[in-house]
Amino acid sequence: MIIIMNKDATREQIDNVEHKLSELGFKTHPIFGEVKTVIGAIGDKRHLNPQLISIMPGVENIVPIMKPFKLASRELKQISSIVEIGDVKIGGNEIVVMAGPCAIENESNFVETAIRVKEAGAKIIRGGAFKPRTSPYAFQGLEEDGLKIMASAREATGLKLVTEVVDTRDVELVASYADILQIGARNMQNFRLLQEAGLSKKPVLLKRGLAATIEEWLMAAEYIMAAGNPNIILCERGIRTYETATRNTLDLSAIPVIKELSHLPIIVDPSHAAGTWKYVGPLAKGAVATGADGLIIEVHLDPPNAFSDGPQSLRPDKFAELMNELKPMASAVGRII
Amino acid sequence: MIIIMNKDATREQIDNVEHKLSELGFKTHPIFGEVKTVIGAIGDKRHLNPQLISIMPGVENIVPIMKPFKLASRELKQISSIVEIGDVKIGGNEIVVMAGPCAIENESNFVETAIRVKEAGAKIIRGGAFKPRTSPYAFQGLEEDGLKIMASAREATGLKLVTEVVDTRDVELVASYADILQIGARNMQNFRLLQEAGLSKKPVLLKRGLAATIEEWLMAAEYIMAAGNPNIILCERGIRTYETATRNTLDLSAIPVIKELSHLPIIVDPSHAAGTWKYVGPLAKGAVATGADGLIIEVHLDPPNAFSDGPQSLRPDKFAELMNELKPMASAVGRII
Amino acid sequence: MIIIMNKDATREQIDNVEHKLSELGFKTHPIFGEVKTVIGAIGDKRHLNPQLISIMPGVENIVPIMKPFKLASRELKQISSIVEIGDVKIGGNEIVVMAGPCAIENESNFVETAIRVKEAGAKIIRGGAFKPRTSPYAFQGLEEDGLKIMASAREATGLKLVTEVVDTRDVELVASYADILQIGARNMQNFRLLQEAGLSKKPVLLKRGLAATIEEWLMAAEYIMAAGNPNIILCERGIRTYETATRNTLDLSAIPVIKELSHLPIIVDPSHAAGTWKYVGPLAKGAVATGADGLIIEVHLDPPNAFSDGPQSLRPDKFAELMNELKPMASAVGRII
Amino acid sequence: MIIIMNKDATREQIDNVEHKLSELGFKTHPIFGEVKTVIGAIGDKRHLNPQLISIMPGVENIVPIMKPFKLASRELKQISSIVEIGDVKIGGNEIVVMAGPCAIENESNFVETAIRVKEAGAKIIRGGAFKPRTSPYAFQGLEEDGLKIMASAREATGLKLVTEVVDTRDVELVASYADILQIGARNMQNFRLLQEAGLSKKPVLLKRGLAATIEEWLMAAEYIMAAGNPNIILCERGIRTYETATRNTLDLSAIPVIKELSHLPIIVDPSHAAGTWKYVGPLAKGAVATGADGLIIEVHLDPPNAFSDGPQSLRPDKFAELMNELKPMASAVGRII
Repeated sequence: MIIIMNKDATREQIDNVEHKLSELGFKTHPIFGEVKTVIGAIGDKRHLNPQLISIMPGVENIVPIMKPFKLASRELKQISSIVEIGDVKIGGNEIVVMAGPCAIENESNFVETAIRVKEAGAKIIRGGAFKPRTSPYAFQGLEEDGLKIMASAREATGLKLVTEVVDTRDVELVASYADILQIGARNMQNFRLLQEAGLSKKPVLLKRGLAATIEEWLMAAEYIMAAGNPNIILCERGIRTYETATRNTLDLSAIPVIKELSHLPIIVDPSHAAGTWKYVGPLAKGAVATGADGLIIEVHLDPPNAFSDGPQSLRPDKFAELMNELKPMASAVGRII
Repeated sequence: MIIIMNKDATREQIDNVEHKLSELGFKTHPIFGEVKTVIGAIGDKRHLNPQLISIMPGVENIVPIMKPFKLASRELKQISSIVEIGDVKIGGNEIVVMAGPCAIENESNFVETAIRVKEAGAKIIRGGAFKPRTSPYAFQGLEEDGLKIMASAREATGLKLVTEVVDTRDVELVASYADILQIGARNMQNFRLLQEAGLSKKPVLLKRGLAATIEEWLMAAEYIMAAGNPNIILCERGIRTYETATRNTLDLSAIPVIKELSHLPIIVDPSHAAGTWKYVGPLAKGAVATGADGLIIEVHLDPPNAFSDGPQSLRPDKFAELMNELKPMASAVGRII
Repeated sequence: MIIIMNKDATREQIDNVEHKLSELGFKTHPIFGEVKTVIGAIGDKRHLNPQLISIMPGVENIVPIMKPFKLASRELKQISSIVEIGDVKIGGNEIVVMAGPCAIENESNFVETAIRVKEAGAKIIRGGAFKPRTSPYAFQGLEEDGLKIMASAREATGLKLVTEVVDTRDVELVASYADILQIGARNMQNFRLLQEAGLSKKPVLLKRGLAATIEEWLMAAEYIMAAGNPNIILCERGIRTYETATRNTLDLSAIPVIKELSHLPIIVDPSHAAGTWKYVGPLAKGAVATGADGLIIEVHLDPPNAFSDGPQSLRPDKFAELMNELKPMASAVGRII
Repeated sequence: MIIIMNKDATREQIDNVEHKLSELGFKTHPIFGEVKTVIGAIGDKRHLNPQLISIMPGVENIVPIMKPFKLASRELKQISSIVEIGDVKIGGNEIVVMAGPCAIENESNFVETAIRVKEAGAKIIRGGAFKPRTSPYAFQGLEEDGLKIMASAREATGLKLVTEVVDTRDVELVASYADILQIGARNMQNFRLLQEAGLSKKPVLLKRGLAATIEEWLMAAEYIMAAGNPNIILCERGIRTYETATRNTLDLSAIPVIKELSHLPIIVDPSHAAGTWKYVGPLAKGAVATGADGLIIEVHLDPPNAFSDGPQSLRPDKFAELMNELKPMASAVGRII
């Protein structure tokens, strides 16, 4: 930690800061510049509240040297993590695709969708049983009935299941059906939900918050890991910007940034980012080329009649076509799909 | 609702859209322009899923005519709402100030803070018992012990209590102590928590999400209202932008916008917006002048030793000074404080 | 154009709006809804100032039906444009790569860089002679001497030249040396410069503004086209968001959006977006996979000693390696590089 | 300047960095932490290109200690600057109001507007003769004829004139008529224009760029000052965010931030920020209360028929009313208006 004193800081103020740091167990190294003094402080600040120092008289600013996340950081664990869901491995050489409708609507459609996406090469079926909707008047999901439908689709196809959990009270229930718990963008900083997901030990698909920095996202992962669950798959799904041509702005740079800062696998959701099926193909290709470990894509048998997010859903035949187009792309980055 | 057809839409596609709209109970009015056709659709679309139409062949775009929120809208209720917490009225002529520390740390400090902010003119004491912290390693709050301390402070001073609830499982507990339930920025779209807060009937202080639009914020209020609780106080606390000179960018324009769109009262939190106590005074004054119905300000006896958010906390004497400076400001907008 | 009247609009206000629209040459079609009235207005509004209507009493909002850009739009010209710079064609099947240093520093280095990037497959050399720098104390470019160096490099290699122009007074000078005029992000709405670039008839590389919407970007292109110059290459270079992990957030979604809205070719600048050479490779691959028509990449013989933007520059050998890795990527989208 | 080495940096890499810094004239102070080493470097880095160091092997990051602006900084000049335009002083105890139409349309209207805003208490008349418009098809201004009209209004009223200059080639012409040169938001980083404005010696009203950080804004001021012109008035006019309820998001926090970082006066433009006249009053009051040194407000005799920005213009009577309401507000912050 580096403490920057302001240019009018008195010698006494500098001494006080050094004294306080010593008290807190730091070794201090003041550097007296021509205009300002800075103090290097050596020690473990993980449990220090930096504001203790930051508002002492004469202090201008504090610069942390270490990242705030630890378990999620590549500094701690150099080898990339692979999250295993039975025989499906996310973070390895194979690019894993999750596909399915936004909301689960009924059994026959869902099972048929599962069959179709499996044929096309998806390894995991997605679907929402508990839906976080912007409007209280919109369809909120079939809840446990939806989970049961997912289980039937698993039986019929052997696909793994990923579905969202939106309430701490439902974690146990959802975990009893799902293979992967999804934490949605709006709940990325619902810290209690993160803790419960951490305690459940199920693999967690952690979507990036609507306007979350990469550091905050990794801190959310840290919450889950600190609760004992290392099986986290990050999911970039677009961030909020001033641009309205797409629903969100897909931040594909997040892929190389995450690969540098963390050992966790990262997949991409081009459907929620784009908000329209027309851009899903190009963005899915871009994601694979940029280094994503997987994709999650909305597929619906009949998008115009979907209960939720129809405009961004691909029909199964379009999805199958896209999967074919992704093969040479995966191969171009030395991977398979 | 207006449906804009794209310029190459065929007559058959236009007919199909009209047919579908009729089926859904709308009366349709096509207008054939020189380049494009638009279709006006009359009827109650509150429960319509607009995508049913938006992805029909030939449709370019859909423009809603009505706002998505209803109970929260001034179109429905022209008279400004006043939220009453005993004898404290928010939304009336008096500008109500809530003050206190970010986190509750111990009884003696909290009670002393309560006494000091009351002397200065605050009507409500704030304090966090359940803290949503970015890091799992940071202090998470005293939980029920914190609520008990709040209750003592109420007894000692007669102030009302506002405190945050972060988990659906805690709503009943928190509501049994607090006079106002706070829903924090990170939980503004934790829809289950909104519903529980709606069922509890306690007044709710609903902070604007980190990157929430005003429309989404009013939709969050709509969730609480739709669950049966009309007692909502909106709180602007800064939004996320690219600017890093302040912790968040305080959006004071939200005040006149909310006043136009909604009947709900709105208060401002200059402390979280600024991130540093130095800017709290000017922004508090700006908020009052712009038309805020109240303020919520962080006050701590000893900011450098605060467990949380010390840098943005005022000392009680600075707070008292600010309260004095706010008086002519309130009077300049024809109100009292 | 659709005019939405507010719910309390009187019959007289509606009549006044209709009357005003008729006066302006529009045919009007009022639709009387249950709550609000909307008026469809048919006619050419290109030269209408919409505010004439928008602030008439009773008017709530105006919704345009047509895009504000015309010459740049795919609605006007369905076939994708190809910009030809001698034998180099941008927007065709070949993905064209521009490469070179941020600033031109001296002749020998620049010519050597040109030779190296040509060997690696670049078709165009980039370099800044006039540099728009955030600080007045930073190196501002070699100006005409830099242009002369560029010309030598062209002679030595046969590469085409792209370089930035930052002042209306320099357009003629720069155009006398360069094959492509670059308009930088900070000047995207320097409308006089756009007009001069339009008059010059040289192909223009138009970078997206720091925080420009896609619509504003196309309106900037429209300025150049309206001045008589149809040879525009758009360049996505990252937009400003709250995320600080990269210098800018590369918006690869802009590629399919531009392809839908406009016939103009679009290339990507991963170097300025990332701000660090480490992410340039993954983002360049992502850009090609998403459908970019070209790339512009910073290459420097000795990045630590570059006068400008060293941290984001690739060394020539790294650039050559990247060009090789891009080949299967181009092939995967049915193109060559 | 602090150099943070990454955790795997070798002793040799650390030595190399120290060596390079010494070569560049810095004194170095390495601090060997438990995990990482940091190096304090003392010396004048104003002309150093920090990347020289930032991409040396083993370097993780560089943290500047000094601000990049110098002439504009309060560190250099503690006393607040007052910009004098004849007898009008901006930055002193009086809050100065500039008012007038967006574009100059004809002499009689402009002179009448000048008379009306003067009566209401404005000291400076604003009006656009050269208009930077998003669309090439929109009204671009009367150019020199507009300037002549402004001069007549000055003669008739004694008001000072502020008007925008958009092209380096026009600075001399505009300066020959205007009392204050305005640099608009879109040209805030048109560095050549800043330099010309610096050379002209006329007071400059420097609007904050659409998405400019406060630091970039002060660097733009630094350009003008470095060219020899210290008479700069900063103008906050709203920044670009994801929120669409207002045209821009007015960042009133910029006022206390600027007051802390710089000695330059700052005024606020609520009209362009809001985009609608309805919010201009509340925001003007908020600006005064937050500490603005002045306001610039759009006033038009007949907003529905304005050539530009009618929706955000006040009628003269509304403006006079607002000026009255601002008086107690100014008095509440110990100033006059």
